[in-house]
Amino acid sequence: MPALDEAGVIRAIVSGQAPRDDVALGPGDDAAVLVPRPGKMLVCAMDTINEGVHFPAGFDPAAIGHRALAVNLSDLAAMGAEPAWAALSLSIADPQASWVQRFARGLRELAGRYGVVLVGGDTVSGPLSVSVHLSGFVEPGRYLTREGAVPGDRVYVTGHPGQAAYGLARWNAGDPDDPAVARFAWPEPRVQEGRGLAGIATACIDVSDGLATDLARVAASSGVRIRVEMEALPLDDSLAAGLGEGDARTLALTGGDDYELCFTVPADREPRLKEVCAGWACRPTRIGTVAAGVGLEFVLDGRPVTPDLGSAWSHFGEAAP
Amino acid sequence: MPALDEAGVIRAIVSGQAPRDDVALGPGDDAAVLVPRPGKMLVCAMDTINEGVHFPAGFDPAAIGHRALAVNLSDLAAMGAEPAWAALSLSIADPQASWVQRFARGLRELAGRYGVVLVGGDTVSGPLSVSVHLSGFVEPGRYLTREGAVPGDRVYVTGHPGQAAYGLARWNAGDPDDPAVARFAWPEPRVQEGRGLAGIATACIDVSDGLATDLARVAASSGVRIRVEMEALPLDDSLAAGLGEGDARTLALTGGDDYELCFTVPADREPRLKEVCAGWACRPTRIGTVAAGVGLEFVLDGRPVTPDLGSAWSHFGEAAP
Repeated sequence: MPALDEAGVIRAIVSGQAPRDDVALGPGDDAAVLVPRPGKMLVCAMDTINEGVHFPAGFDPAAIGHRALAVNLSDLAAMGAEPAWAALSLSIADPQASWVQRFARGLRELAGRYGVVLVGGDTVSGPLSVSVHLSGFVEPGRYLTREGAVPGDRVYVTGHPGQAAYGLARWNAGDPDDPAVARFAWPEPRVQEGRGLAGIATACIDVSDGLATDLARVAASSGVRIRVEMEALPLDDSLAAGLGEGDARTLALTGGDDYELCFTVPADREPRLKEVCAGWACRPTRIGTVAAGVGLEFVLDGRPVTPDLGSAWSHFGEAAP
Repeated sequence: MPALDEAGVIRAIVSGQAPRDDVALGPGDDAAVLVPRPGKMLVCAMDTINEGVHFPAGFDPAAIGHRALAVNLSDLAAMGAEPAWAALSLSIADPQASWVQRFARGLRELAGRYGVVLVGGDTVSGPLSVSVHLSGFVEPGRYLTREGAVPGDRVYVTGHPGQAAYGLARWNAGDPDDPAVARFAWPEPRVQEGRGLAGIATACIDVSDGLATDLARVAASSGVRIRVEMEALPLDDSLAAGLGEGDARTLALTGGDDYELCFTVPADREPRLKEVCAGWACRPTRIGTVAAGVGLEFVLDGRPVTPDLGSAWSHFGEAAP
């Protein structure tokens, strides 16, 4: 199949997407024209993924398209927002039709699942890089930030952190068919879960850079200390079996790219949390407690421990326990 | 000066920017939270510029920051919109503080001139690439598209198309101090002009890929034929002196990166156009007429001519005259 021009790339991506009533003018003009929802605030995220940095060279184009949107859906989920409109900027050296069609399918399938439409963007020549800007809605006063955790809150995380890093390690080890690889390749943003947490959680963040790093961000933004109970970390079975319990815990704390949600909930809202999460695809696990102070602390069976967080701390020297 | 981490890069860019009341939550969380203006539609553009493609390697970082925002401001201008919120994604291999600070200054100065604030984005490792997403406001029913030109309309363009391409050619020829280079390096988006055209122009486009290519887009979108009067093209004096009239006209038709506005106006609105453009920094020049039919035609002193449009037509084979 031949290389596509810019219009062909955009057509491949937008063709067949279900329309939204709030898009007055979609792709094809100098800009899109959109109709905000009366009384709602707008939540906007923008993330770029680069070949060789955020995904390996030679990766499945469908997984790249999925990932470019997923990381932004995860950001909106962490704010408790409902996603709506995406813009895409694709840098690519040689847009072969077969590659673009697979890329488009990965992006479109995930977009369709959450009612997101592509409203604009561009395709330019350059090393493989995908930027997505995603907008959505949230009720005023109900959006989640990293700032609201207070002493006494309980700390939760969805899913099984560390799975994605383990999957990437299996890929890098030359085992692309290991079932763990799919957890890296196809991150599942917690959109429904984030919406359910609006009004319940006091703080929320998506776990993109490793649980310890992202917990430290919540602690710093909220001005609190977070105690992590090591034995409570929800280790994936294959991770524990493949690495042993100790290394599995380390990977659960330090591995990136999980796109799970980590959040804090006051004790008296735990019954409401139990109600809303009954309908979730993934269950949240309580992994710790918010205390007064700064930074993080780790306990195992009630005793302080110092896990080997390695390079995960390089960004957060000042918050290390 | 040392390399900056992601937070440092973002700080360098947002520090000192004037706040906007409609930003509920700015950079630093998982996403920004913004307050749309009641009764207004939202206009959104996203463009990426890559080193070696959209600007030469070794280009002034301030000019790169300026350009990344300018190309998006130009898109919003072409819609008749008022710009408001920008998001930035910067891919860079080695974010040296001195480079980032110059880049930030170029971006921030242009943003400040139009009341735009940076509300989010990210910094990632990779070959130098800058993506900007820009949002703004427009009154419902008053936004400009490429579709509304009708036979009898007059065709106008702002400024002096071809200047930017001439400046880039001087840069590539090893003459970075030629005054023409600044016309490439520091494009001036026609924001005020675009706002003034809302309600007057029937169609509008920003001239980013060359006047002939962009006029052909208007003709195709509107389903009309556009007649260009070659002698009316507003040639810049230095361009005509440097190239001769014939080549200067060709460059005015084919040179990219001018970011002027090209628009169509019904004859009976020309008096209103004269009123609004009295306050503009650049004057629009009438360069042709809209007729029934398809594609473009060119006349010189009333006689049909076929200018050498070279590669400018590669994207638009079907619309070539």
